Order: sequence, then C-alpha cells, then structure tokens
Amino acid sequence: MRTPPSLLSLTIDSAVINLSNITDLSPLPDHILIDLFLRTLRAGKLTERVLKLFIATGKDEVHSLIQALNIQVIVTPVLPTKIKDDEIDIVIGAVSSDMTAFMNEWRPIFSRFHLIIVKDPDLKEELKIPEGFNLDVYKKSDIDRMVGSSTSILFSGYSCRYFGYLVSRKKYIVSVDDDCLPARDNKGFLVDAVAQHITNLRTPATPFFFNTLYDPFSEGADFVRGYPFSLRSGVKCALSCGLWLNLADHDAPTQALKTRQRNSRYVDAVITVPARALAPISGINIAFDREVVGPALVPALRLAGEGKFRWETMEDIWSGMCVKVVCDHLGLGVKSGLPYVWRTDRGDAIASLKKEWEGVKLMEEVVPFFQSVRLPRTATTAEDCVIEVAKAVKEQLGSTDPVFARAAGAMLDWVKLWKSVGSSSSPPGV
Amino acid sequence: MRTPPSLLSLTIDSAVINLSNITDLSPLPDHILIDLFLRTLRAGKLTERVLKLFIATGKDEVHSLIQALNIQVIVTPVLPTKIKDDEIDIVIGAVSSDMTAFMNEWRPIFSRFHLIIVKDPDLKEELKIPEGFNLDVYKKSDIDRMVGSSTSILFSGYSCRYFGYLVSRKKYIVSVDDDCLPARDNKGFLVDAVAQHITNLRTPATPFFFNTLYDPFSEGADFVRGYPFSLRSGVKCALSCGLWLNLADHDAPTQALKTRQRNSRYVDAVITVPARALAPISGINIAFDREVVGPALVPALRLAGEGKFRWETMEDIWSGMCVKVVCDHLGLGVKSGLPYVWRTDRGDAIASLKKEWEGVKLMEEVVPFFQSVRLPRTATTAEDCVIEVAKAVKEQLGSTDPVFARAAGAMLDWVKLWKSVGSSSSPPGV
Repeated sequence: MRTPPSLLSLTIDSAVINLSNITDLSPLPDHILIDLFLRTLRAGKLTERVLKLFIATGKDEVHSLIQALNIQVIVTPVLPTKIKDDEIDIVIGAVSSDMTAFMNEWRPIFSRFHLIIVKDPDLKEELKIPEGFNLDVYKKSDIDRMVGSSTSILFSGYSCRYFGYLVSRKKYIVSVDDDCLPARDNKGFLVDAVAQHITNLRTPATPFFFNTLYDPFSEGADFVRGYPFSLRSGVKCALSCGLWLNLADHDAPTQALKTRQRNSRYVDAVITVPARALAPISGINIAFDREVVGPALVPALRLAGEGKFRWETMEDIWSGMCVKVVCDHLGLGVKSGLPYVWRTDRGDAIASLKKEWEGVKLMEEVVPFFQSVRLPRTATTAEDCVIEVAKAVKEQLGSTDPVFARAAGAMLDWVKLWKSVGSSSSPPGV
Repeated sequence: MRTPPSLLSLTIDSAVINLSNITDLSPLPDHILIDLFLRTLRAGKLTERVLKLFIATGKDEVHSLIQALNIQVIVTPVLPTKIKDDEIDIVIGAVSSDMTAFMNEWRPIFSRFHLIIVKDPDLKEELKIPEGFNLDVYKKSDIDRMVGSSTSILFSGYSCRYFGYLVSRKKYIVSVDDDCLPARDNKGFLVDAVAQHITNLRTPATPFFFNTLYDPFSEGADFVRGYPFSLRSGVKCALSCGLWLNLADHDAPTQALKTRQRNSRYVDAVITVPARALAPISGINIAFDREVVGPALVPALRLAGEGKFRWETMEDIWSGMCVKVVCDHLGLGVKSGLPYVWRTDRGDAIASLKKEWEGVKLMEEVVPFFQSVRLPRTATTAEDCVIEVAKAVKEQLGSTDPVFARAAGAMLDWVKLWKSVGSSSSPPGV
C-alpha cells in the first residue's frame, strides 16, 4: 500500500494547477516556496508571469535557484530549435564513380535533403547516380569555370568536397565519405547520422569544463555535481565529428600492422572536445555550421604523394586542427562521438605505406604548432582567424618544409574564394 | 574458391619461420623487407636479435617504421604489467552502519583483496560486517590515537575514507562509496570494477592529444590517423574515475528538479581527460596510484552545512581539481569512464537543497582558481605540488570566504600527516 500524499503535498499540487489565479506568493514559508517552484518547473508552467511572481517574493532561496538553474528572466520560450530540412546540404565528394550502392543505402536518410555531389576532377568515368534525389552535381568543368586558374587550391581527390562547402548556401553541412554506409546501433537500429549531427550542432557544447557523464544535453543526461552553474548554458557548437564502425580511421602503418582489426565498439556518447585540447579530426563523417565556421574548413595541406585512400591524406587532419583553434579562439564548441557510419574496406595499407610516411612525419611539426598558436583579439570571424593562422604557418613552419608554405598560401586563397564565390547570394552556376 | 597464395607470400611466410637461421636481410628489396617486418611483428617474432637484423639493413623505410611504431631498440619484452592482488587496498568509508548487503554484493570482486574500512567517527552504531573478508577496520579511537589533535583535518562523514588512504601501504587504492553495488554491463555481465580500474591505471594515459576512438589501449582500439607517433607511448595514469548507473552523481538542485531521472546509459569507453581541462571528479568510484599522487587526494574543503549525502559535500570535487592540476604539472594522466557502479537511492534532494547552496556557489570561485593556478618547476612531487596549491589558495581565495583559508590549512596539515603517518614502513596500529 502506498503512503497517501500529505495534505501539504496536495495543497502544493493544487497551487500549481491554480497558479494563474495567484497574485502574491510572498506569504509562503521558504521551503514551501521552493517546493512549489520546482513543481511548477516540472509541470512546465513556469511562464514569464509566474517567474515574475516568484521573483517578486524577494526570497534569497528563490533567487539562488533561478540563478543556479540558469533561468533567464527575459523568457522567450526555450523550445528545442527545430532545424528545417532546407537549412541543410549533404555534401559528398565522389572519389569512386559508381555511387549506386552508396546512394541506395543512404536513401532513407538522405532523400529528404538537398545533396551536393562533387566529382573528383581526376576521375575519368561518368558518375552513376540512382534516381530519386534532389541533387546538384559539380564536375571539373564547373570547378574550372567558377574558381578558374586564380587559385593555388586543388580540388582533386578527397579535397573535391571542399568545393561543395564553397558553393553551398545552407546554414548546415553534413559530409560523409563515399565509402561509408549507414551504421546500426547496439540494438540493431539504423543510425540516422544526419539527425544526430544536427542534434549535436543545435544543442550547446561545453568546452570549458569536462562533464564526466558526457553530453549533458542528450536525453536522460545532465551536468554532474560540481559542474559550475555559470558554465551550464554552454556555447554554440560549430562542428560535429562522427565516428566509424568496421574499418576505423587508422593510418597506414597501424592498418598494415593490424590487418584484421575492425572497430566494433559502439560507444553511445557525444563529447565536447575541451578548449585548447587538440584532436585528430577526421573528415570522413562530419557536420558543421557553415555560416559560422565554414571558411575554417580549408583544403590546405596536400601531401606530395597523396592518393585516393584516406590514410594517404592529411587535408582533413590539418583542417581539423585549424577549425579547432578557430573555435577555441571564437568561443565555439567541437563535439566528437555519435553518429557512427559503417566504413567499408578499401585499399591496401601495405601498398600505401610508402606514400604515407610524409604525413606521419609532418604531424610531429603540425601538432606543436597548432598547440601553441594564439590568434589576436582583432580576429573576430572565421575568415579573420584563418588569415591569422596562415600568417603564423608561413612564419613558423614555412622554412621547415615547402608543404607548409603551400598550405599557408592555400589558406589565404581559400578565404578569398570564400568571399567571392561563397558570398554571392544564389548558388553559383545553378 | 580462394585465390591460392602467391609464391612471394609463401616465401615470406617461410622466412618468418626461419628467421633464426638468417643473418643478413640487406639483399632484400624494400617492399619485401617491409612486408617481412610486418609479418614478423604480427607473428610475435620480433626479438632483440631479429630487430637488430632489420636495423642492420640500413634501409630508411625500416627505420621509419621502427620509429613510427615506437619500437624501442633496447627490447625488454613489452608484456602487459601484471599487478598482484597484494599491491591493492580497497578503501571503504562506512557512513552507514549496516554493511551486510554492500559487502555481500561485492564479495565476488572484493574477497581477493585486502580491505580498509574506516568508520565515520560521527556514526554511533557498531558496524555490521559479514565474515569472510581480509580487512582492517579503523574507528574514531584509531583516528584520534594516530592523528590526534595536531591537525585541522576532520575525518568525519565522507572524509573518513581519507584516513584509509593515509594508513594504506599499498601502491594502488580503489575506493567506492558504501551506497554503491556492482553494476552490470550492456550484456548483463557483472562489472569487475577493480579489474577495470587497475587496467586504467596500468595502461598509459594520453593527455596531450585527444584520441577520438577513446582509450587507444583498450582491446580492439588504437590511435587514429593523425595522432602523432611521438605522443603514442602516453604517460603514466595516476587516477581512474569511474561512473554510476541508476542514481547519477547530480547536485541537489538537479536531483530535486528531476526526481525521477536515473542514469541508464552504459557508455563503453574510457577517456583521458586532456591536459589543462578540468572535470568534476567525483569520489564515489575511484582508484589511484597512491605512491605517485596519494598526497594530492586531500580532504580539504569542508562545507559548513555538510551532511551525509554526496550532494551535500564538495570535498571530493575540490580534491579532484587539486589532483588534476598536480597531474597536469607532473605530466601524469587522469582517466574517466569505465567502470560503472550501481548507485542506490539515498536521501531527499529537496531537503538537501538548503544545505547545498554553499557548495554550488563556491564552485564559481573554485573553478577559475584551479583553471589559472600554475605550479613552479621546483615542485616535483605530489607533496610539493599540494603545498604550492595551498599557498595559492591562501593568497588568491583566502579573503573571499573563510572556507578557503581553512582548506589551505588542511592541505598543509595533510602533507605533514602524509609524511609522518603515511611514511612509516608498516601499517600503523595494526
């Protein structure tokens, strides 16, 4: 038998229901006031008028609670921001010509959105794309026409996707490599990678203090004891980096050594990468707020022996360092974790070993540089920041290896392109 | 039908088997040499002699591979360090008197180890402890006798466990709150929290660069592309912070607002908290290398209205900030994540709300302090570091609130106690 509710408890419940008739709460004792406040909040009845009623009591406890729970006095209803489908572009860099399996597997997830497919200009064969999608395809001729010979940037190989970032006019971009298929979660359900990326981007990031229970904004989670209330509103999340089941994003030496190793660990978590901590951000499965950090995703570092396998490239790792430094400077967040994609096997790691050494060696210079680079306060946009990073690259790394001087030049060219091609009001060439 | 292996492949396999008869590898072409090296490594046949054979070829590719895979030329066999049971103390602070259910549930995991049970000196009733454990119990009389009146430290409430840290003579300590039971993983298997903590401590931590696939030393995991090889050997892990299923470690306002919320998300991951990132380290479920950071786990911050529920305390959060700053300074690692424990419901969050405000408010001062404090190079041990932190607390926070001046005093007293009580060669009073 359950204990019947106390008279006090029933009275408070009744007060919650009749809040609209109450004009003064100040006669209530402190502990009843707090209880009423919490029940009001739980019942979803804390309107602007009711909040003012509580504030008008002038009780310290109430003020502390309002402050601690970060309730804003100017109440615009805090509803989860619904992002419309037409605010999103899915950008796919086509490195292989037959996209049939890729597109069909992604159909249940991608078909609601507009797609931008950029064909690797080195690819000779025609693209095979199944029917039933809303998409624009950009080829070598489009790239040449729009970018021309005025730039040092090469949009070949994996870098072709950056052309899609440039011509998109949407707020959000989701980009997945063309050798990835939708993954399934621990329970066997298909993962909607786009929905998870967008959730990551539209909920705040928490870069200034690590929450041990992972993303406090995911369902069933919250901030843990000791997390400062002043930091709980978080900051805007600008970049969401997803992960990979099956073939993980290893470098060629690791893959060559562990030929049979596949990633089967589905970690059900999203983490904000803390401020000033760098991570190897892979471009395989990402999403970002194009309006805010688009220019910082930059195709700058091109290896001499760069090939058509991820482990032969470093463009995304460089771009990831750059965007993380920019986010840290601008007070934006970067998340890593969910969603997973299923990465299919491709390429021979041992054969790639010869090419990839350059990239592996460069990281020993690249990481200390990005760990120490600081941007001036005058840099207040992603464009400003990229220009400042480019300057620092030229000064501090330029003499180490010609690849860095070229990267610095490409970054400056990218910002110019972003301002010209990227800022026109309608999608160019469509 | 499978493709038959090539003659070359068979030859290399045969060479791996017959390595002991080979005295010179230099005539081999580069690509065969690399393949042979990788197969040798995979077959577990890379002995010191064989490694020298490869190095003697003088081939650049081989040297790069050896360097990249961080293979040390002075080969002492790299076997996983086996920690003996007698290197571990399980320390339990008894805040409730009836330990029957707690001990019986933990029996399959704890019975191999030596336990130190410290009874909260405020607790009047006799402890009820079932038979069949190897343990020492410390009571108020033991604490008074050993620590006496010479110290400002109060070992009451949750802080009683620190007395156990002080009297332990073991290298590792695992400590779990007495309202926690063993958890079950996603597959329903009982989690051996001790084994997971010890794995966390004996494998390296990676605080200087974030690995997106979580702990690279866990089974089936590795470093991802772009992770600098020079950072892959990691650093010693000094502290392992486990998590909680069922009742999460929320503060009183959060718990009061979400009375029914329970944590059911089992995240199968261990993360190194990046260098210079702070986290709210809970003392509910932790393990640490006592020899290395023991003195930095310090019972210093005692709230005026501190009670017998976790959400009424801050001692562990303060201690966690302190140990993280010390680890960052000494180049040690802190991990968070697995293992989980099952935390049973206890206490009334709404009733605790009044007491707990002090702690919530203090964090607004505490976090910026620990984020900015820097220790001098001369501080080379955990003891040195705690003394330096205490000095800074006194200088920078001392005038803000008397609770901080008392914390600084307690930290200095703790180091003195650690040197006197803690450094004697046999467990005192046993």
